[in-house]
Amino acid sequence: MTARMTGTSSNCVTLRRHHMDTSAYIKSLQDRASVELRKRLAVPGIAPDLEEAMQYAVHNGGKRIRPVLAYAAAETVGGALADADNCACAVELIHAYSLVHDDLPAMDDDALRRGQPTCHIRFGQATAILAGDALQSLAFEVLSQPSNKSQDTAAMVSTLAHAAGWQGMVAGQSIDIDAAGTAKSENELARMHRLKTGALIIASVRLGALSTGRATPEQLHSLETYAGCIGLAFQVKDDILDVEGDTAVLGKQQGKDRSLNKPTYTSLLGLDTAHQRLQALYEEGVGALSMFGGDADRLKAIAAYIIDRKH
Amino acid sequence: MTARMTGTSSNCVTLRRHHMDTSAYIKSLQDRASVELRKRLAVPGIAPDLEEAMQYAVHNGGKRIRPVLAYAAAETVGGALADADNCACAVELIHAYSLVHDDLPAMDDDALRRGQPTCHIRFGQATAILAGDALQSLAFEVLSQPSNKSQDTAAMVSTLAHAAGWQGMVAGQSIDIDAAGTAKSENELARMHRLKTGALIIASVRLGALSTGRATPEQLHSLETYAGCIGLAFQVKDDILDVEGDTAVLGKQQGKDRSLNKPTYTSLLGLDTAHQRLQALYEEGVGALSMFGGDADRLKAIAAYIIDRKH
Repeated sequence: MTARMTGTSSNCVTLRRHHMDTSAYIKSLQDRASVELRKRLAVPGIAPDLEEAMQYAVHNGGKRIRPVLAYAAAETVGGALADADNCACAVELIHAYSLVHDDLPAMDDDALRRGQPTCHIRFGQATAILAGDALQSLAFEVLSQPSNKSQDTAAMVSTLAHAAGWQGMVAGQSIDIDAAGTAKSENELARMHRLKTGALIIASVRLGALSTGRATPEQLHSLETYAGCIGLAFQVKDDILDVEGDTAVLGKQQGKDRSLNKPTYTSLLGLDTAHQRLQALYEEGVGALSMFGGDADRLKAIAAYIIDRKH
Repeated sequence: MTARMTGTSSNCVTLRRHHMDTSAYIKSLQDRASVELRKRLAVPGIAPDLEEAMQYAVHNGGKRIRPVLAYAAAETVGGALADADNCACAVELIHAYSLVHDDLPAMDDDALRRGQPTCHIRFGQATAILAGDALQSLAFEVLSQPSNKSQDTAAMVSTLAHAAGWQGMVAGQSIDIDAAGTAKSENELARMHRLKTGALIIASVRLGALSTGRATPEQLHSLETYAGCIGLAFQVKDDILDVEGDTAVLGKQQGKDRSLNKPTYTSLLGLDTAHQRLQALYEEGVGALSMFGGDADRLKAIAAYIIDRKH
């Protein structure tokens, strides 16, 4: 029995073993992530403004791509979803903090995210800065919580910290800010995105696999190659949506990146070539999963979801 | 053979076993921390502005109180200084990031720290925000590095993350910002400081002790009581210096807290009573160390240093 997935014809994938369609599978992981995040964000009642801002930043209708990837990676290596709850929440907390800080006036100066006022518009800049800081701390606190599996917590913390910091996400954001208004080659643009978004996406699958206590080095390598391609594809798709999408669906100001004169894949390559790059990255990404056979269908379905999304 | 320590007569302590005076001991730990921090801040060469700002924020003439406490706690439970290098660096990285963010215009809006332009004055706000973010990530990366000791890395990461986040330092900073211009009781003021500075100082001694792999629960409890008192004493002393000190020695604008109309121990209690509180906290702190006998002399000396300091 097979169930055909939604998607463009070239990206159709088959979930041979699971008899559920992609969108239902992804929705179930998104929902699980949101439930688990809500548990870990049960407010301690110490600094109410701060806590409300943190909740606001996390429960804002995000797509939970990183937790979805962590969960699917755990299942792909034969683990259970419960293994990956902590790391799925941790990567989303890092992502949420980065959005709060990126939106600040001194950074990208965005007033709207997913159709809602950004955190600093709603709570003020000071609270937004602190909420971001505390979300990062909480990510590491969550990741260090005891698990039933024989996890290597030190390796997991190291993975997340490395991906989030000056050799990963923050470095990419720094390069992105410096890049506004400057010409970039495609390689330079890819390098920036591999840091800014790719590092955390790669960390998400790595952590999901590590959380099961059963991933082999070969499996980790394969998963990371997949995630590197999908992470970059995610950004190419963002740039395409920034040109093709409309503001109502995107929930943010369409053409914002262009108005900031930031280099994008579409400005650099044109729309047609950007679409070709997107497809090539998708194929390279899913190709890296061959060692998993049918167990890779979940991750393949997520890849198709990422490049087919409308917002 | 004993060596008398410097300090006010009431705070004189004796380092019975170590034959070195307090200031030389503390200086040796400060220097060790700076050397170890320099190793861990060897720039990766990815985002130069960011990396320079991080270096600037860490190597700014800070007193390294938190690493000093971590090292001394490790020695107090019979461990080696090398055990505590990672955690000593981690607590200082958290402290350094918090200063960078606290100084931002949206927060305390300070242009000067330790006689030098603050990070955002020197590098711009965007880079300062990112440098703070990356310093926090680096703290957890450093803390997760392998050690020769049978450390419980998960417990150490949890300790630091809890102390740094929404139930610790960031909560205190949030309450502090909300408190500007409002009346506070002494208990409320103490609660704010126990979060804002106390939590990380307590974490510093706990981590130093945990890093040795040999601390007992009773030892940890005793050390944390000591650190709670010393952390609060540190803040009372800061408030006293803000009134008594002069700008040239302090390296920051004297009377700044008062000009922001923030509640302080001196404004709340008067200078004389604040001095009495300082002494009482010192005595309670060193009293908590009785189980260690002569092994506690290092931590006692550090307590005296903290309350006798001139800046």
